[in-house]
Amino acid sequence: TLNVKKKKNLYICVLNLTISVWPLPQIVIPSPERYQLKPQSFSFGYRRNLDTKHSCSVLDAAFKRYFSILFPGYTYANLITFSIVFTLTISLDRHDCQGYPNQDSSERYKLSVFAGQASLNAETVWGSLRGLETFSQLVYQDDFGSYYVNKTEIEDYPQFNYRGILLDTSRHYLPVQAILKTLDAMAYSKFNVFHWHLVDDPSFPYQSQKFPDLSNKGAFHPVTHIYTQSDVRRVISYARMRGIRVLPEFDSPGHTKSWGKGQSELLTPCYRGDTPSGTFGPVNPTLPSTYQFMASLLKEVASVFPDPYIHLGGDEVDFSCWRSNPYIRAFMHKMGFGLDFSKLEAFYIEKIVNITSVLRKTSIVWQDVFDYHERRKFLSVVEVWKQGCYLCEVRRVVKAGLRVILASPWYLDQPGPTHNWARYYNVWPLAFKGTEKQKSLVIGGEVCLWGEYVDATNLSPRLWPRASAAAERLWSNERQTSCVERAFPRLQEFRCKLLRRGIQAEPLYVGHCKHEYQSG
Amino acid sequence: TLNVKKKKNLYICVLNLTISVWPLPQIVIPSPERYQLKPQSFSFGYRRNLDTKHSCSVLDAAFKRYFSILFPGYTYANLITFSIVFTLTISLDRHDCQGYPNQDSSERYKLSVFAGQASLNAETVWGSLRGLETFSQLVYQDDFGSYYVNKTEIEDYPQFNYRGILLDTSRHYLPVQAILKTLDAMAYSKFNVFHWHLVDDPSFPYQSQKFPDLSNKGAFHPVTHIYTQSDVRRVISYARMRGIRVLPEFDSPGHTKSWGKGQSELLTPCYRGDTPSGTFGPVNPTLPSTYQFMASLLKEVASVFPDPYIHLGGDEVDFSCWRSNPYIRAFMHKMGFGLDFSKLEAFYIEKIVNITSVLRKTSIVWQDVFDYHERRKFLSVVEVWKQGCYLCEVRRVVKAGLRVILASPWYLDQPGPTHNWARYYNVWPLAFKGTEKQKSLVIGGEVCLWGEYVDATNLSPRLWPRASAAAERLWSNERQTSCVERAFPRLQEFRCKLLRRGIQAEPLYVGHCKHEYQSG
Repeated sequence: TLNVKKKKNLYICVLNLTISVWPLPQIVIPSPERYQLKPQSFSFGYRRNLDTKHSCSVLDAAFKRYFSILFPGYTYANLITFSIVFTLTISLDRHDCQGYPNQDSSERYKLSVFAGQASLNAETVWGSLRGLETFSQLVYQDDFGSYYVNKTEIEDYPQFNYRGILLDTSRHYLPVQAILKTLDAMAYSKFNVFHWHLVDDPSFPYQSQKFPDLSNKGAFHPVTHIYTQSDVRRVISYARMRGIRVLPEFDSPGHTKSWGKGQSELLTPCYRGDTPSGTFGPVNPTLPSTYQFMASLLKEVASVFPDPYIHLGGDEVDFSCWRSNPYIRAFMHKMGFGLDFSKLEAFYIEKIVNITSVLRKTSIVWQDVFDYHERRKFLSVVEVWKQGCYLCEVRRVVKAGLRVILASPWYLDQPGPTHNWARYYNVWPLAFKGTEKQKSLVIGGEVCLWGEYVDATNLSPRLWPRASAAAERLWSNERQTSCVERAFPRLQEFRCKLLRRGIQAEPLYVGHCKHEYQSG
Repeated sequence: TLNVKKKKNLYICVLNLTISVWPLPQIVIPSPERYQLKPQSFSFGYRRNLDTKHSCSVLDAAFKRYFSILFPGYTYANLITFSIVFTLTISLDRHDCQGYPNQDSSERYKLSVFAGQASLNAETVWGSLRGLETFSQLVYQDDFGSYYVNKTEIEDYPQFNYRGILLDTSRHYLPVQAILKTLDAMAYSKFNVFHWHLVDDPSFPYQSQKFPDLSNKGAFHPVTHIYTQSDVRRVISYARMRGIRVLPEFDSPGHTKSWGKGQSELLTPCYRGDTPSGTFGPVNPTLPSTYQFMASLLKEVASVFPDPYIHLGGDEVDFSCWRSNPYIRAFMHKMGFGLDFSKLEAFYIEKIVNITSVLRKTSIVWQDVFDYHERRKFLSVVEVWKQGCYLCEVRRVVKAGLRVILASPWYLDQPGPTHNWARYYNVWPLAFKGTEKQKSLVIGGEVCLWGEYVDATNLSPRLWPRASAAAERLWSNERQTSCVERAFPRLQEFRCKLLRRGIQAEPLYVGHCKHEYQSG
């Protein structure tokens, strides 16, 4: 391992030498010495200490992907011949190819490129995927088309364990292909959580095994605009192969209009005076049937999605409908809630969190739940999303001993001049007064791409490369990435890499890439 | 023709009945009576009075295009069989299939759909293309996939003759395919001018016959990032087939940095004190060689581009470099310009306009030329682009007896929440105090999609459907299209039509289209 003195030298190094990897690795020792790579004589391999009886399917698939990324137009065939001139050899400390990445997975890796070979060591298979991505970004072509990689030493690990992107498939339906494409691009920026905001007011595209009417009646279209169980499995598996977790969100008790179409008596009937108005409000928290339904739905969700976390939403609950309903008011009276409807909301959320705990899942909620509820002990992870002094909110949450995911500064559904990527780069999640222990409770951040104005037509250029700015903030060392001007050319080059890999990332400013995106 | 009383009835009609055509035709008499259309028994035809010895290639090609738009998946074969059940018959007052559309071309048409047939009459072939577009938007599918068109009477013509879209191929190179795709979408919204901002500071992609070094040295790449003569011909021809003019812009004396790379001594050397600094400013207006070059280049441009107009630019000339140069100052002194560099600019522009006049082309300039020059008689058409009180500027220009193109309110390269399409819709180009004659000098408007932050990755969703809002303003009757709320569902439906036709138009708000865009 590199010692502190080297680290110090390195710091200057990084500032002076261009290393075109995005997000920037923690420790890099570059060198001008370069080696030529040829697709015909390049190979990936396992180090002998890896139990080769169990071949690692995640890595085998990654070898194929990255070979085509390294050498566009070529397909990987695992040649064992004497013609191999350059081998990238992988060793893993743990043989964990069968599982799923999770919140505690190490993504640490060490990559050495030297004459005729490269070695990549990681604690887990997920870390080795990060290292492969880095290696792929180190390879470049000269003006004559030959491939090169420079002698390089890299030691790398993420600043934050949770680096997410939220896609909203309720306000507009996103074809599975658009989701998979986003997972590809996420892996290129080393994002590791796909927060799937599956359902909301406008539509319910998740096809439930137990409650098929939810999508039959609540989706935009019961056949073309749904995610079948097979679609969901495909997304989860595709994500896993790239070291990405899939975090499902079933937001309640608000944001549930579409649920009511397929599940009668779930939503609160709103009243005008003494009579029901025909419209419906949030989930009805006063009926036992509500909790039976939610327990049953969440049990299904818990088994379909392997991640140990479930996002329960809990944001923006409108009390006016509850207030209008005489049965709700009677329940409030009976429970001694007075006129404080946030107590009713807390009552509901606590029950849902308990259901989730019984299913051995950890729940994440939007900051509203933390803000309006006095009893906070039952909470685990709070996602901060509101604008304003979001670090004040982060501080309040960690002071209460809860973990935080920060989303406020990364609402990318808001379009803006592309060059304001710096706005998403200059974010300092830990720049609040707090103890080391409190700061360690900030587990990461998330880019939110809400769906009011986004669908498959504009998803990619709206997300990329602006989300990559957030990616570097969440992966890299703050001190080494505090300068926007220095980051700019590296991000421009990364954007060109995204284009070349088929991601429709929009331009940052005037100019061109060697390999432009070919429009259809 | 419809009489005034009918027109009045109609006004109410249009407000109450939904007619899903965008931009809204001037006069519509809809009806609930509908006729079924079948691809196997639908035909386009010419009315007998049309000289059939000369078949009209523009219309023959349009029949093929619109057949596939009407019936996706089907190809048009001009069947003359007894199985034809529905024919759309076209008659033209003038047989002008060989020419190009121009500023004075009539786009007026009359469309009647009744039992078993439709008749489309137009003064010119360009008007008949507008009518075909309207007809294509009248056809719809029921839930079982059958095609229908309602009995309808339409009389239609544009409010403004100039309805343009500017694309900037200098700040980012746009592949020819992206331009052609934009021409398709323009025709769907009845735009009729493609303002091609070909060259500018960052790059010179136009491959000149006479001065090949301009693109050899001034393009981002001399082979992959240029428009060859054949590319240009293809764009002009593709546009013509859709009734769209191609207006080339060669902006000078500013915005010419890239010109200097391939044409030495064209640009002004800037000075630091007594010595050249090594940087260059605007075109050097003091050298005879400048005017020889410009005359030669513009002569080529005048012959390559058939349109009778050429855009000469003339915007944003920075005087600091001219001021630094002792030879320029000496010239100013000799000419008696004092220290007023706008006089030097006027001197230059007048010479360029004269060159253009000799080539029998009418010149268009940006408003700067009008603003800073005292002698305005030599100008013809002024394009108003600056923000602020743009109607004040429009009024000044028409008071000087010059024609105006309005661009200020339609700078679409600025991203913004999509729902601000209303901002581009609620524009009233004639809402200034002036005589009828003065108002008639406002010949139209233009959507500008500058290229700093736009290339093929985000061009379509940034342009569409927001540009369509401007299209309706420039085509339709103001009184009938003054209500944003009423326009919204019609624009949403039009956006779905764009998607179905392969245009990646972004969503206006939450929801879905029957036929969504399939992402790659």
